[in-house]
Amino acid sequence: MQRHQLTERLPAVVESLVADIKALPATRRLGNVLLPSRTKAVAILNGLQQLVFPGYFGLQGVTIETLPFRIGELVLELTDLLYDQVRCCLRYREGKSPEEEADPTCVWCDHEAADIVAKFFDLLPAVRQILATDVQAAFDGDPAATTPDETIFCYPGLYTIMVQRLAHELLKLQVPLLPRIMTEHAHSLTGIEIHPGAVLGKSFMIDHGTGVVIGETVVIGDNVKVYQGVTLGALAPAYGQALRGQKRHPTIEDDVVIYAGATILGGDTVIGAGSVIGGNVFITNSVPPKNQVLLEPPKLKYRDRRPKNERAEVVDFQI
Amino acid sequence: MQRHQLTERLPAVVESLVADIKALPATRRLGNVLLPSRTKAVAILNGLQQLVFPGYFGLQGVTIETLPFRIGELVLELTDLLYDQVRCCLRYREGKSPEEEADPTCVWCDHEAADIVAKFFDLLPAVRQILATDVQAAFDGDPAATTPDETIFCYPGLYTIMVQRLAHELLKLQVPLLPRIMTEHAHSLTGIEIHPGAVLGKSFMIDHGTGVVIGETVVIGDNVKVYQGVTLGALAPAYGQALRGQKRHPTIEDDVVIYAGATILGGDTVIGAGSVIGGNVFITNSVPPKNQVLLEPPKLKYRDRRPKNERAEVVDFQI
Amino acid sequence: MQRHQLTERLPAVVESLVADIKALPATRRLGNVLLPSRTKAVAILNGLQQLVFPGYFGLQGVTIETLPFRIGELVLELTDLLYDQVRCCLRYREGKSPEEEADPTCVWCDHEAADIVAKFFDLLPAVRQILATDVQAAFDGDPAATTPDETIFCYPGLYTIMVQRLAHELLKLQVPLLPRIMTEHAHSLTGIEIHPGAVLGKSFMIDHGTGVVIGETVVIGDNVKVYQGVTLGALAPAYGQALRGQKRHPTIEDDVVIYAGATILGGDTVIGAGSVIGGNVFITNSVPPKNQVLLEPPKLKYRDRRPKNERAEVVDFQI
Repeated sequence: MQRHQLTERLPAVVESLVADIKALPATRRLGNVLLPSRTKAVAILNGLQQLVFPGYFGLQGVTIETLPFRIGELVLELTDLLYDQVRCCLRYREGKSPEEEADPTCVWCDHEAADIVAKFFDLLPAVRQILATDVQAAFDGDPAATTPDETIFCYPGLYTIMVQRLAHELLKLQVPLLPRIMTEHAHSLTGIEIHPGAVLGKSFMIDHGTGVVIGETVVIGDNVKVYQGVTLGALAPAYGQALRGQKRHPTIEDDVVIYAGATILGGDTVIGAGSVIGGNVFITNSVPPKNQVLLEPPKLKYRDRRPKNERAEVVDFQI
Repeated sequence: MQRHQLTERLPAVVESLVADIKALPATRRLGNVLLPSRTKAVAILNGLQQLVFPGYFGLQGVTIETLPFRIGELVLELTDLLYDQVRCCLRYREGKSPEEEADPTCVWCDHEAADIVAKFFDLLPAVRQILATDVQAAFDGDPAATTPDETIFCYPGLYTIMVQRLAHELLKLQVPLLPRIMTEHAHSLTGIEIHPGAVLGKSFMIDHGTGVVIGETVVIGDNVKVYQGVTLGALAPAYGQALRGQKRHPTIEDDVVIYAGATILGGDTVIGAGSVIGGNVFITNSVPPKNQVLLEPPKLKYRDRRPKNERAEVVDFQI
Repeated sequence: MQRHQLTERLPAVVESLVADIKALPATRRLGNVLLPSRTKAVAILNGLQQLVFPGYFGLQGVTIETLPFRIGELVLELTDLLYDQVRCCLRYREGKSPEEEADPTCVWCDHEAADIVAKFFDLLPAVRQILATDVQAAFDGDPAATTPDETIFCYPGLYTIMVQRLAHELLKLQVPLLPRIMTEHAHSLTGIEIHPGAVLGKSFMIDHGTGVVIGETVVIGDNVKVYQGVTLGALAPAYGQALRGQKRHPTIEDDVVIYAGATILGGDTVIGAGSVIGGNVFITNSVPPKNQVLLEPPKLKYRDRRPKNERAEVVDFQI
């Protein structure tokens, strides 16, 4: 086929795609109501990161004297972005779809959005204060960290915790969709998935972090440390929507350490304060406080891969 | 060293790097033939995502009346992008490197590229229809999902499945390189790696997903659910190129659930319809239909970390 | 609340945030000294990738004749970027914070930065040569790779190894912060975390890779292969800063293969040359050369999920 013949076929391609889209309403969102936008959600997170850790990201050279101007500018910008996105999300929840109604106006949504943004800003200083405890925990808990600043600049665990704490406040303010879009953005950047519904205590640390999954109804106390590949999940999640609304995920009390690859499942499972869960442990029952739970060392099979006449020298090999 | 002294050294730096590049042809691609571009491959995926789920991404406010204009515009744009990238990939396969020939023209490649793009567009409605079953499965299978829209907006499993289904069609149309560049882009965003060669049934769901690896010769039936950290892989993959072209990865029949961290290896391994593979199970043999395979609960060692005089209170501790 | 009422509340919001930022110096970086920038670090990596693999990324159509111009342009651009970032990092280490001193000038830092950039460029040809061995290893070791070029275009393992080798040279030149920002950027893209301090031999391959963690004091020999989810980590890392500076991570000798999900911990642990560590193996002791270490196949429990009257047909089921 020549290139111009391909172009000549395009009207038929468009017609067939349009017919298919018309026939399948479930995977299209047409109409005049704007939907929430992932791009805008990311812009909001970038602005909030600059508010939460001023001077590390974005514009540099801000001084203690010029700080109010910089913060003022960021707050103005974020107000516009947040108000618009929250409004979209509220209209979405109200089913104000133009496929259903000619006039998608929702005055109630707009007033509610302004309320929510105001309340969210009021909560930010408290979020900053708890994030300062996370920064200290990330530094104290990692021998490879040279300064607390290093954890702010580039630790994926700290970034994901920051995003989750912000998204969690929006979720508590009843904003649909946006909180999950935010935590999934962090998941994409870090490989760490924390549902915005999870409740996290202060001084929370996740090191390395790739593969961590922390479910919607997890409750975590203060000073908890979690390593890569840890799942705090549900039993039999494949039952899907049938489980909705239940407490499906575990509770982790204060001062618990959960090492890499451990799996802790179930809504009634409680890991007691001060306990240590070893690497790769798979647990569906509660653990009382101050216990250490380890895998009994699994049996390993060793096979010498050398020709027989070369093996004499290792008679003393013992593991 | 002062800054200007550094600049004075640069000609020697360039000379040494150029000499090194000339001496090592294996890791350079010089010449006039354009190679496929990751940036363009990503632009193609973004456009295709807007065709497949119209209204969720990109331009908003499209109505049922203006739909043909929006789809028409996207199809035109994608035709240009796809034709160019497919043409680059075909020329690449033909070895049309300007390091080898003065005239890298390949008329045959250009005609073939137009053919492929036309066939690919003809397949899109069918891909949209199967993706609608994946959206429903993602919602039905996750108690934390509030609406099917949420899965389209931000579920990494659904995104990766979308990219793989599109890349798989390009692979079947014999396009080199581009399909893998696409699935590796999704892998980078989601931590989920599905080789474009894998054959996926309808209503396929991957939840959480970070760490999932689904190999080149995997075949998966309908209504299968896979969780984070699952490997459907090859036995002894370190043998590398020696295994090329063999069926190296397992077959998963309809209605199978594979929980987090399970590893299923080998080209002759078949997981029978309706079976459930438990978390962390490591399997290299087939499982007949309708079986549940669980790890026998591993022995755990508990050690009380409290001073002895504080332990009396837990005499009733049993797990 | 109406939209204009939200705006009227903003001065109070700004005041409260500014007060909070003033009260919490630990999580702010104010003043005139520019800090290192993640955006610039990523720009440096993109430029270095074009130097290391010329023609694959960025500007295409470079010929053997125009190569010196293209390389010259890249080197000039990278010199500016690197000199600025290294200078920021050195001033940062010297504590040249404008919150502490009115004049943050550091002439010593500037001269040192020029020295470091000059030395770094001198090392680049050697880094290119070792990366050529990694490209060959990535191709040879993966039956799904169709050409070595495919591994350069889109293999996450090769990308992460490239970034780590470059960051490792900067770390050896005593540049603070920047090397870790670089490897964490790669971690974000690939799910593979290799600390810039790790020492990697030639022909190193990581396949699939998501979830791999390679710690700061790891030493790896030549021709080593590592698969997804492998941890080369520390024992009891939760002790945190108390362990700083110790050799905490294992040593892997030449020609070792470490399959998916294996965990190898401890600074005294040595995996001897030619050994193979099986999938999911958890090891805290050394293994002598030329051994194969496998999990003794874990006991699995099978439960037939069919109604009893349908089970007769599988009397011959054996696994």
